[in-house]
Amino acid sequence: MKFHKILIANRGEIAVRIIRACRELGISTVAVYSEADKESLHVRLADEAYCIGPVLSKDSYLNITNIMSVASLTDCDAIHPGYGFLAENADFAEICESCNITFIGPSADAITKMGDKAVAKQTMMAAGVPVIPGSEGLIEDLDAAIMIGRDIGYPLIIKATAGGGGKGIRIADDEPSLIKQITAAQQEAQKAFGNAGVYLEKYLTGMKHVEIQIIADKHGHAVHLGERDCSVQRRRQKLVEEAPCSILSEEIRSRMGEAAVRAALAVNYSGAGTLEFLLGTDGQFYFMEMNTRIQVEHPVTEMVTGIDLIKEMISVAEGNELSFTQDEVVINGWSMECRVNAEDPARNFMPSPGKIQFYLPPGGPGVRVDSAAYQGYSIPPYYDSMIAKLIVWAPTRQEAIAKMKRALSEFAVEGIQTTIPFHQKLMDHPTFNKGDFDIKFLEENEI
Amino acid sequence: MKFHKILIANRGEIAVRIIRACRELGISTVAVYSEADKESLHVRLADEAYCIGPVLSKDSYLNITNIMSVASLTDCDAIHPGYGFLAENADFAEICESCNITFIGPSADAITKMGDKAVAKQTMMAAGVPVIPGSEGLIEDLDAAIMIGRDIGYPLIIKATAGGGGKGIRIADDEPSLIKQITAAQQEAQKAFGNAGVYLEKYLTGMKHVEIQIIADKHGHAVHLGERDCSVQRRRQKLVEEAPCSILSEEIRSRMGEAAVRAALAVNYSGAGTLEFLLGTDGQFYFMEMNTRIQVEHPVTEMVTGIDLIKEMISVAEGNELSFTQDEVVINGWSMECRVNAEDPARNFMPSPGKIQFYLPPGGPGVRVDSAAYQGYSIPPYYDSMIAKLIVWAPTRQEAIAKMKRALSEFAVEGIQTTIPFHQKLMDHPTFNKGDFDIKFLEENEI
Repeated sequence: MKFHKILIANRGEIAVRIIRACRELGISTVAVYSEADKESLHVRLADEAYCIGPVLSKDSYLNITNIMSVASLTDCDAIHPGYGFLAENADFAEICESCNITFIGPSADAITKMGDKAVAKQTMMAAGVPVIPGSEGLIEDLDAAIMIGRDIGYPLIIKATAGGGGKGIRIADDEPSLIKQITAAQQEAQKAFGNAGVYLEKYLTGMKHVEIQIIADKHGHAVHLGERDCSVQRRRQKLVEEAPCSILSEEIRSRMGEAAVRAALAVNYSGAGTLEFLLGTDGQFYFMEMNTRIQVEHPVTEMVTGIDLIKEMISVAEGNELSFTQDEVVINGWSMECRVNAEDPARNFMPSPGKIQFYLPPGGPGVRVDSAAYQGYSIPPYYDSMIAKLIVWAPTRQEAIAKMKRALSEFAVEGIQTTIPFHQKLMDHPTFNKGDFDIKFLEENEI
Repeated sequence: MKFHKILIANRGEIAVRIIRACRELGISTVAVYSEADKESLHVRLADEAYCIGPVLSKDSYLNITNIMSVASLTDCDAIHPGYGFLAENADFAEICESCNITFIGPSADAITKMGDKAVAKQTMMAAGVPVIPGSEGLIEDLDAAIMIGRDIGYPLIIKATAGGGGKGIRIADDEPSLIKQITAAQQEAQKAFGNAGVYLEKYLTGMKHVEIQIIADKHGHAVHLGERDCSVQRRRQKLVEEAPCSILSEEIRSRMGEAAVRAALAVNYSGAGTLEFLLGTDGQFYFMEMNTRIQVEHPVTEMVTGIDLIKEMISVAEGNELSFTQDEVVINGWSMECRVNAEDPARNFMPSPGKIQFYLPPGGPGVRVDSAAYQGYSIPPYYDSMIAKLIVWAPTRQEAIAKMKRALSEFAVEGIQTTIPFHQKLMDHPTFNKGDFDIKFLEENEI
C-alpha cells in the first residue's frame, strides 16, 4: 500500500521535517495548527492546513477528535505524530487503526508495553537486556527494602512509580539512610502523586546517556543504526547529541545494538524507536526506557548512516520490508546536534519568545539546519522553546566540533535571546572536547 | 608551514565558502570588497575587511596593487583567489610568490601552460590524453585545410584562435563547404579580432560536458575525485551540475581519471584543478581545457566523496602532502547543484538585481546551500548574477532529483526574479530525468 496523503499531527521543526520527507516521496501533506500557529512554517509548507483549536495543546495538538476529523475529511491514508503530543499515546494509535488510518509508529500494544516502566523493565529482562539492578516492582515493606539493599548494594535510588521529571526521587547512601527515608518517600509519593508506590534502583554514577536507534518493519525484521551520546543534559533536557559516542568500543556497540534489536523483536515492534541506556566507563550498560517514536536527535544518526529515518518510517508503515539490512548499516564520520532554544542562557535559560527580527541560518558543507523559524516569525510562548536544530557532519569528532563552532558563529538570530552563546562556550569546554563527560556534566560544571 | 591568516581575493558565495573553511581550520580571514559590496555577507563574516576600490572589477577585485597592499599590511600568509577575477592570472600568482605570500593554487608556470589553448592541447597529447582531432596549430593555407579535412573527416569546426565565447566559429559539413568558408573565416577573424589565424577541429555532436576534479600536492602526488556532468548549459554557462555522470561506466571513469592525473603530473600541478572533456555516448572522451582553480560546481564532488576541497587546497598550499590516497576516494550516492541566479527566466534570463525582501533557504537532510544572500541584501548589478548554489545529496539520482524539487519548492526569495522556476521545470523534463542529455539539450529543448 502506497500512501497518497499524510496528516502531520505536530508543529514546529518536526512537522517541517516530515513534510519534507513526504514531498520527496511524492506524498501530499495535511498540516494541523492551533490558533497560535497560523503563521507557522509547517502551515506554509504543507499542501493543506487546518486549524484544530485554541492555543493550549490540550485543545489543539492533543485534540484527538479534531485531528481525526481533519484526517477523515481530507482523505488521509496515515498520520505521522512526530514526537511529543500524541506520539506515544496508545489510545490515539488505536483510534487511528479503528478509523482505517495508519498510525505511523508501532502498534498500540507495543506503545503500552514500553510506556509502563515496570512492564518495560520486565520485558527487557526477559529479552536478556541488562537493566538497572533494583527491586522487581514496588517495595512491599521496610524489610523487603532492606533485603534488596543488602542484595544490590549502596547507594540506592528510591523512585516513586507515579513520579517523573526528577520528582519523587531520594538517594540512600547506606542501610540507616534507607530505613530513615523509605517511609517518608512513600508518604511523600502518596501526597504528591496520589500513589504511595516506590521502587528501588542501584544509584549509578559517572554514567553516560547513550541510546540506540532501531527501526523495524511489520515482517519481523529489526535493525539498529548505532548509538547517540546524549549526556549533555540540563535538568534531564538534552541540549547536545552526537553520533557515535566517543567512549564506545565496537564490541560494546554491537552488544548494545543486539540488545536493542532483541528488545524490539520481543514486543513485535515496527517503526522507528530508541532504547535509552546508561553506559559506564567500564562498558557496562543498563536499559532505562524505550521511546516508541522518532526522537528530536534523530538527524545525527541520519548524518552518519546516510539513512533517512522519516522516509523509512513511512515505508515500513506502508507495509514494506526494511530497505536495508543490518550489514548495510555503516557508521561514517561524526555528527553533532545543538538544540537552539529561544531561551536566555545568561538568565537561567528563561524562555525568550517574541519576534525574530533577523534570521540567517548557517550553510556550506557539512551543515544541516532543521527549523521552522524565519525572519519576521513570532515565536509563541505556548509550546517548547526549540527554534532550530543545528546539525553538522565531519570526518572526525574534532572536525565536527570545529565545524559546529563555525556554524554557531554565523547563525544569526536577532530580536530574541537564544542558547547559541551557551553552545559556543560548551564547544570550547575542555571536558566536552575530550568527550569524557557524563550526565552530571552540566550540573557539575559552569558553562 | 601553517597559515595564520588568509586574504580572500573574491566576493559572493565563494568568498563565504573560503571563510567557512578557514574558520573551521582556525585560520584568520581578511575580506576585500568593492564600494558596491560594503554590505556583502563575506564582509560581515570575515575577521577583517578592507575596501579595495570602486564598483568596477578592474578597479577593485582585479586591482592587484590594492589587494597586495592589504595582504601585506594585514600580515597575510596566503591569498585564496576563488574562481574568476584573478584566479587564473599567472602574473598575480607570480607577484604573490615574489611578496612571500602563498598563492593558494598552482604555480604561475602551470597556469600559463594550461591557459594557452594550443600549448595545453600539445601538453595533453604528450601526456597521452585524448584531444579533439584537428589541425596542429593554425591553418597555413587552403591546401593544408583540405588535407586535414580528408584526414580527420567531416563535419569540421573552423575556429578563430583569437575568438572566444562562441564567436568566430563556422561549421564545414564537407570539402566544398570547407573550401568555401576557410578564406571567409580568416578574413572575418582578421576583422573581428585583428588576427586571421584559424584552426580546425572535428565537430563532435551528441557530446556531454564531463569534467574530472583533481587535486595535487607539492610532493608529486595527484589524485582524481571522479567526474561532474555539466552538460546542462545555456550559452556555454553551466546551470546544473551533478556527480557522478549517469552514462559513465566504471571503466571509462578510471580512464578519464587516470588521464587527468597524468595531465596534472605533466605540468607539476599543485592544488585543485579541473580537466574538462567532451564525452560521447560511445565512451570516447576528448580533452577540452583545464581550469587551474576551484570551480563553482566543486560542492557536488564534496558531497559524493566527503572531502572538503577548499580545506585540502589550503593544506597542500601549506606544503602538506595530500591527506588521502587515490584508493581512499570513494564515490557515494548522488549529488546535484542548481545555480540560482538573480535572472528572470520568463524574460530570456534578463538580470534581476535589487533588494531581497524575504529570504529563506531550504534546509533538512541532504540539502546544502552555498550563498552570500540574506533578507534585506541588495544584489548589485555589477557582478555575476548567481545568488545561491543549491546542492543536494541522496543515495540515487532519482532521489536526488526528488530532493532538489522539494528544496526548490521551499526556497523563498522575494523582491527579485530568480531562476528557481526554470530549475523546477528542468527537474520535471523527461530527458533530464533519464540523464541522457548532451550539451545541446537546452538549445534544442524548450524548458
